[in-house]
Amino acid sequence: MRPAFILASALTAAAVLCAQPPASPVVVSPEVHTDRTVTFRLYAPKASEAAFFGDWMKTGTSEKMTKGGDGVWSVTVGPVRPGIYIYHFVVDGMTIADPVNPRIKLRARTSASLLEVRGGEPEVWMPRDVPHGTVRIEWQHSKVLGGDARWIWSYTPPGYEQSPNRRYPVLYLFHGSNDIAGGWILAGNANFILDNLIAGKKAEPMILVMPFGHAVPFGSPREQQAKNVSLYDEYLTRDVMPFIESRYRVAPGRSNRAIAGLSMGGGQSLFIGFSHPEKFSAVGAFSAAVPADFAARFAAVLKKPEALPQTIWFACGREDSLFDRSEKLSALLKDQGVPHTWHPTPGNHTYTYWRQYLAEFAPLLFRR
Amino acid sequence: MRPAFILASALTAAAVLCAQPPASPVVVSPEVHTDRTVTFRLYAPKASEAAFFGDWMKTGTSEKMTKGGDGVWSVTVGPVRPGIYIYHFVVDGMTIADPVNPRIKLRARTSASLLEVRGGEPEVWMPRDVPHGTVRIEWQHSKVLGGDARWIWSYTPPGYEQSPNRRYPVLYLFHGSNDIAGGWILAGNANFILDNLIAGKKAEPMILVMPFGHAVPFGSPREQQAKNVSLYDEYLTRDVMPFIESRYRVAPGRSNRAIAGLSMGGGQSLFIGFSHPEKFSAVGAFSAAVPADFAARFAAVLKKPEALPQTIWFACGREDSLFDRSEKLSALLKDQGVPHTWHPTPGNHTYTYWRQYLAEFAPLLFRR
Repeated sequence: MRPAFILASALTAAAVLCAQPPASPVVVSPEVHTDRTVTFRLYAPKASEAAFFGDWMKTGTSEKMTKGGDGVWSVTVGPVRPGIYIYHFVVDGMTIADPVNPRIKLRARTSASLLEVRGGEPEVWMPRDVPHGTVRIEWQHSKVLGGDARWIWSYTPPGYEQSPNRRYPVLYLFHGSNDIAGGWILAGNANFILDNLIAGKKAEPMILVMPFGHAVPFGSPREQQAKNVSLYDEYLTRDVMPFIESRYRVAPGRSNRAIAGLSMGGGQSLFIGFSHPEKFSAVGAFSAAVPADFAARFAAVLKKPEALPQTIWFACGREDSLFDRSEKLSALLKDQGVPHTWHPTPGNHTYTYWRQYLAEFAPLLFRR
Repeated sequence: MRPAFILASALTAAAVLCAQPPASPVVVSPEVHTDRTVTFRLYAPKASEAAFFGDWMKTGTSEKMTKGGDGVWSVTVGPVRPGIYIYHFVVDGMTIADPVNPRIKLRARTSASLLEVRGGEPEVWMPRDVPHGTVRIEWQHSKVLGGDARWIWSYTPPGYEQSPNRRYPVLYLFHGSNDIAGGWILAGNANFILDNLIAGKKAEPMILVMPFGHAVPFGSPREQQAKNVSLYDEYLTRDVMPFIESRYRVAPGRSNRAIAGLSMGGGQSLFIGFSHPEKFSAVGAFSAAVPADFAARFAAVLKKPEALPQTIWFACGREDSLFDRSEKLSALLKDQGVPHTWHPTPGNHTYTYWRQYLAEFAPLLFRR
């Protein structure tokens, strides 16, 4: 036997040992075609119905899949605009990720899959041939929350390791409900967005810090969930920030600190930013779950706009059910004479827009 | 309305927006009971059969799940020994991860779920209250492989950032077939194992470097897969190692470099370690897919045992179908007078044993 063939046997044996039982046929899903239509496939020989949902579609809708003779269901959708999307299947009432797609959208509970569609133009979220920063995962035992060590994801910009005397500003960046600490990296491509902005001299080199936003376990009863934002505030300011400032070469002071987030994390960034205006010079809120008691809770600080973060920037898509909250927030701030940028956009409640918002917000920060 | 309640509404709205359509009842899975039995649950109202497989079970077996009136299938297994296990469901012939368990076993293709069972005793893989190192993800554009930037996961030991003049030895650590670069972290807990060994002064502080082992795309035809190990060798030595040695404070020379892996990665570590004996002072192979042509390919170097890595250590479980390959490798090395440690153990082809092997192998490295 030729060595190559023997090696192949060895690798195949290993593959079989490591993989799930190969009972199902080899299914390719998703398959992105050159015209940007996409075919999704699912082996479910005994299912009576299967449907597809992609996060660019209207909530509550779905695309029916049809079954082939080999037990493989399929549907072709699109053309789909270049981007990264989240999708799932519903098979006989059961919501699942795509079983053969390795790109999983990790979540606090339940999971889905990621679809990436490339176009002719370079997109700000795409990994380009520019210097790449480093994503890091730290573990910290939280005094505020107890329990196991919690992970904190972060990003250090290109050159961080090679510039041992340089200190960097920090953007604390929060995910949404039912996401994980790494959501902004694994689905948001925040690291590639910053790499590209920094390479293009559109943003200052900065550190991103991404803690896990569920201080109260996700899925807890509503009365416990209600405590999440204040508990997270305490966790962030008492555990995470001192930890980061002791481990990273962080530039000191308010002018080198910003805070932003999406959805639940947008609510958190507003809550924490307005609770500690002495700590942050900028607040960003993307499709934010603006706390409903915002006006009442921050009545006193709203009377002193000069003490608030200088940059207050929020955006939301018009198809997003949280749109009105941002609109109302803008009205409130206007009424109180608080300078801010309210950026209504097309779009819905997805990373498609959050990536774009980050690419617009980051360049506003830490300019000298 | 009390503020807390209003916030709760906000968070719930956000949760609904971010989560999958909440058509199914709230299912808890897995649920580890105090006696270490574990209940798995799956909402599949229209399924006609569902089964469970955990990686401590004999390959090809499964546990039948039974359907409750609410459409939730369940099974209770165990008691299960403390550990981290990989499991999946088979629903009407479709193999899926647990849809509600956030701990996904990411793979090159297909996915499964992770179950963690704690016991009374501290285990070497558990995050303990000791200093934690940092996990890092780097992106590099590979000249050898082309295409998109590839990620490289790594681990720097506690104190790395605080000791800017210290250089560290490196263990290149490889995953198995159908795994991802981060497999040794996300399923292997290699970072916690090293944290614990270093805290207990049982291992030298070292850097771990974990590239993605599928140089040829996983799932390629067999004749292409056969080229994986030599292509990976080229990728590792021409791209990864220079990149790491230019970015990390790496102690120079063979005596500060080791190579190890599991399954396919064990085959790779033997292949690369014996191909470049001048680069590595130690080779570890866990449940290795030992290349079948090993004797022929390395006939020349086997005749010069003094030039080979000083530490050659391999282990495999007696229930592992790759057991015989390690046994034969030991016979070959003995025959050629090559000093080595062959460590047959109980166990099968799972991370349960690979974690243990790492905890036994790492203390042998870089001792002065």
